[in-house]
Amino acid sequence: AQALRLAVVAGDGIGTEVVEQGLLVLEAALHGTGTTVSTTDFDLGARRWHATGETLTDTDLDAIRGHDAILLGAIGDPSVPSGVLERGLLLKLRFALDHYVNLRPGRLYPGVTSPLANPGEVDFVVVREGTEGPYVGNGGAIRVGTPAEVANEVSVNTAFGVERVVRDAFARAAARPRKKLTLVHKHNVLVHAGHLWRRTVEAVNAEFPDVTVDYLHVDAATIFLVTNPSRFDVIVTDNLFGDILTDLAAAITGGIGLAASANINPDRTAPSMFEPVHGSAPDIAGQGKADPTATVLSVALLLDHLGQTDAARRVEAAVAADLVERGSADRVRSTAEVGKDLAARVAG
Amino acid sequence: AQALRLAVVAGDGIGTEVVEQGLLVLEAALHGTGTTVSTTDFDLGARRWHATGETLTDTDLDAIRGHDAILLGAIGDPSVPSGVLERGLLLKLRFALDHYVNLRPGRLYPGVTSPLANPGEVDFVVVREGTEGPYVGNGGAIRVGTPAEVANEVSVNTAFGVERVVRDAFARAAARPRKKLTLVHKHNVLVHAGHLWRRTVEAVNAEFPDVTVDYLHVDAATIFLVTNPSRFDVIVTDNLFGDILTDLAAAITGGIGLAASANINPDRTAPSMFEPVHGSAPDIAGQGKADPTATVLSVALLLDHLGQTDAARRVEAAVAADLVERGSADRVRSTAEVGKDLAARVAG
Ligand SMILES: CC(C)[C@H](C(=O)O)[C@@H](O)C(=O)O
Ligand SMILES: CC(C)[C@H](C(=O)O)[C@@H](O)C(=O)O
Repeated sequence: AQALRLAVVAGDGIGTEVVEQGLLVLEAALHGTGTTVSTTDFDLGARRWHATGETLTDTDLDAIRGHDAILLGAIGDPSVPSGVLERGLLLKLRFALDHYVNLRPGRLYPGVTSPLANPGEVDFVVVREGTEGPYVGNGGAIRVGTPAEVANEVSVNTAFGVERVVRDAFARAAARPRKKLTLVHKHNVLVHAGHLWRRTVEAVNAEFPDVTVDYLHVDAATIFLVTNPSRFDVIVTDNLFGDILTDLAAAITGGIGLAASANINPDRTAPSMFEPVHGSAPDIAGQGKADPTATVLSVALLLDHLGQTDAARRVEAAVAADLVERGSADRVRSTAEVGKDLAARVAG
Repeated sequence: AQALRLAVVAGDGIGTEVVEQGLLVLEAALHGTGTTVSTTDFDLGARRWHATGETLTDTDLDAIRGHDAILLGAIGDPSVPSGVLERGLLLKLRFALDHYVNLRPGRLYPGVTSPLANPGEVDFVVVREGTEGPYVGNGGAIRVGTPAEVANEVSVNTAFGVERVVRDAFARAAARPRKKLTLVHKHNVLVHAGHLWRRTVEAVNAEFPDVTVDYLHVDAATIFLVTNPSRFDVIVTDNLFGDILTDLAAAITGGIGLAASANINPDRTAPSMFEPVHGSAPDIAGQGKADPTATVLSVALLLDHLGQTDAARRVEAAVAADLVERGSADRVRSTAEVGKDLAARVAG
């Protein structure tokens, strides 16, 4: 029997509600596999910051490192100045734990309504770089608040950082039936970063000769996401473009209530982190209205990462079956009801 | 009688074809107004670069400055390395002529098919900053081509540059029935640039107290563009976010074949430039297949800029009428046929 030590960061707003259901489904999925789960709750987010002024201390980070994986609900609250929790907690976790693969599937499940008139079959995955680009926090401003203010933001891109995420994306593409990789960047304007990405994709392609590669500027990629999303198989892109494209991808596949993500450290030098793409949604927090499905699908990504592929597929199948029935349901279930139903389906 | 001195940069690919039709409609719209047009063709783009290695010389730029406005078709060709014409010609024009307001309407005309199932009424305008942000060309790389390469791109934002475009956006919002301005940025991650934008919008709002302001992160803005585009009236945003959002906006309002843009120097210290959002489309160039409508709508923006508002409205009305009939047409017209039909409608 194996024990999975899971760090739980429920966080703010609806985070607590959805994580509770995610854990329920995780337990159900691991039942009978011989793997047990032990969880440690981490009090991180707006409440902690208001009480102590802390976002994520070295002690927190060390304690988290002692776990096999992290399940995160949502971070952020309007009562906290913009950037404090995002940069001081969420991005700090991604950077400190070297989550260089930010994996975000874009999949339209049968029965789910897309805002697109003719979405077609949508089943791609975005490999968003997670530790570089404009997210490094390498910006600054002078003469703040005066008419002579200058505020800069630096996007940092390294051969080391780009190559490792590109290689991961190629490996994922090679393992999929269509074996297609689309690089998204803006190399006609951001020529230095863009050419590094392009050269790296060309070079790594030699290691994966059966993967077909194409390229889209980020602006054109948004067009294809609404006019022909079926054209995408694996997308690899930088941190900021990945942020933008994955929200759009979530929108066309039924909304952020369904969008899962994994912040993966493929070298396993630190725990990977699994979180829904949505935020803390303070407007509906505490009302049992949040859809826990995105968290449950993030649990499937967690199971995949742990090598529990059967369990992962069962979770996805449970979600797929649940989504088909939602269309004909006579009422909207609460967060806990959806979690309970999904756990029951997983238990079989 | 007034004479309009128009610099014409037809450019590459379909640029020549669509500009020809744009000029035809411009002549028709100005007929009887007392304003005449004299055009100067500028040989700029891929052909010139291959022949001479030049993109845009000081002599070109000086000659262009001697005009009242610029009509541009499209720039770019796969035979030219990425970035050469974009940075050396198109962006050089925008920067050198201080086109700080890059105006891009997002309007769904009746009869036009959107990829969205329920687009609703879509009628907004994006005010994209045109002379700062990640487009400044302030990047660089070291150890290029080695495993130790670092490639940086710097987004430069100034109080001077942000304030002038924000003020322009407020003025446009104040002149529209809904009087609503949405700032789009990513101030929870790009905190220095983002907070400059946010503070500036708050400050300038005092001059336009009847304009309602809201804010969206760029990722969330892409969601609303596909789930509720009617929520937008005027959007103000930086150069890169504006590039991305306006391609998406074009996609949901019928495609880049219809998307117009104006690169405006509101201080009129240099000629403004009017161009379709689409590129040179080398795959269909020379075949008479390109839709000149985006260029014709850019001509309407040109007429507006020149104070010829009646003529501008007549061009828009001609396009609107033409678009309604397209749905029931039994065949697809050529570039020249569409241009001729639009010119005939404008002539009345
Ligand atoms: C909250 C924010 C910092 C975050 C990001 O930009 O990465 C979010 O939008 C996401 O996509 O996970
Ligand atoms: C061609 C390119 C440099 C340009 C841009 O990024 O501004 C284009 O995409 C546009 O939107 O006009």
